[in-house]
Amino acid sequence: MKKYAVIVAAGSGIRMGSVLPKQFLLIHNKPILWYTLHTFLKSYKDINIILVLPAEYYDTGLAVCDEMNAAYPIRAVVGGDTRFHSVQKGLSLIDEESIVFIHDAVRCLLSPSLIHHCFEETQKFGSAIPCVDARDSIRLIHATGHKSIKRSEIKLVQTPQTFQSAILLPAYQTNYQEEFTDDASVVEAAGYEVHLVDGESNNIKITTPLDLAIAEELLDPPQFSV
Amino acid sequence: MKKYAVIVAAGSGIRMGSVLPKQFLLIHNKPILWYTLHTFLKSYKDINIILVLPAEYYDTGLAVCDEMNAAYPIRAVVGGDTRFHSVQKGLSLIDEESIVFIHDAVRCLLSPSLIHHCFEETQKFGSAIPCVDARDSIRLIHATGHKSIKRSEIKLVQTPQTFQSAILLPAYQTNYQEEFTDDASVVEAAGYEVHLVDGESNNIKITTPLDLAIAEELLDPPQFSV
Repeated sequence: MKKYAVIVAAGSGIRMGSVLPKQFLLIHNKPILWYTLHTFLKSYKDINIILVLPAEYYDTGLAVCDEMNAAYPIRAVVGGDTRFHSVQKGLSLIDEESIVFIHDAVRCLLSPSLIHHCFEETQKFGSAIPCVDARDSIRLIHATGHKSIKRSEIKLVQTPQTFQSAILLPAYQTNYQEEFTDDASVVEAAGYEVHLVDGESNNIKITTPLDLAIAEELLDPPQFSV
Repeated sequence: MKKYAVIVAAGSGIRMGSVLPKQFLLIHNKPILWYTLHTFLKSYKDINIILVLPAEYYDTGLAVCDEMNAAYPIRAVVGGDTRFHSVQKGLSLIDEESIVFIHDAVRCLLSPSLIHHCFEETQKFGSAIPCVDARDSIRLIHATGHKSIKRSEIKLVQTPQTFQSAILLPAYQTNYQEEFTDDASVVEAAGYEVHLVDGESNNIKITTPLDLAIAEELLDPPQFSV
């Protein structure tokens, strides 16, 4: 089965307090995006990568791709106004039956085994949405206030959200709705159920300077490109 | 106003894969519990600390207290079967009007300013429950499946959960219910509304070896006791 990874790197990184979008911040002298691409390329030699970039950093993104030495050329596309529109633009480059990973570039700590697991589960079940349990107590906010709910009643959703193209591509042929918080919600709105799998506690979204310090701790300095 | 902090250190630390409960694991040669106690003592010189300990590590906990040089002696009590029962035992030592912080010992990265803020808000509103936004997408699990909800519909709840004793002590005069996921839920079950305040992104629960590495990164090596 053909494999595509849409790597969403179109964010502006406001929360990091940095001018440079966070996918381009350096860890051991390589951008965060480098580690994400490296892990996907290490997982499957024959993977096709589509990289969604901010217009203002398109060349910066291409420079990272040039370093990767991928078997298939990494294709790049400029993102849209929301994550939904960015993914939609990435998916527009896929025109064959495949398994498609959609992954946040700033989750650079995922493991190849999570990618393999998502692939295998998607072959069987049509999709694989990695989730982890919350560690904190949870409060549900509603129109008139808030109430405590059991921790077991929610899951925190990660990426790569993985789908069979036959499900994903038609689901994304729709207009943006505010309820589209991730790819699973788009696919559900099209009438499909999604399949949850276990995520990884290390697979965090690099959002704050603390996260960057964590990533530095966990990532080995790169020895050579793939 | 008198100040009490009930520090709940009665957990067994199974998730850390360690024999020693995680509140006693060392960071820069001091137990996690040491940092937590240190931050409370630094926040208010006149704070009364009640430490809830596991029976098997009671002496270990007392040895940490001996190091603290607190203005008022730290009192220790053996915990119960659940967090609820542990808190209940800690509260049984409070018999005067006060503001009471209830805090997880393994959240050793909180700042004095969070403690001060919780105190001030509790004086005004009766309680202060520190919360942060979720960064991941969220899925609500229900009896027949799961559905995507907006990230803004939930809050992740931290500690110190802070209350006026006049509200907290009567609320805890009840029997354990499965719905008691934290102190706020106990107080709500007694008919009160709780007041949410902003938590801190660094105020994580040390649960995994990764968290321990983060804490090591963030905590300065101690120079001297308070």
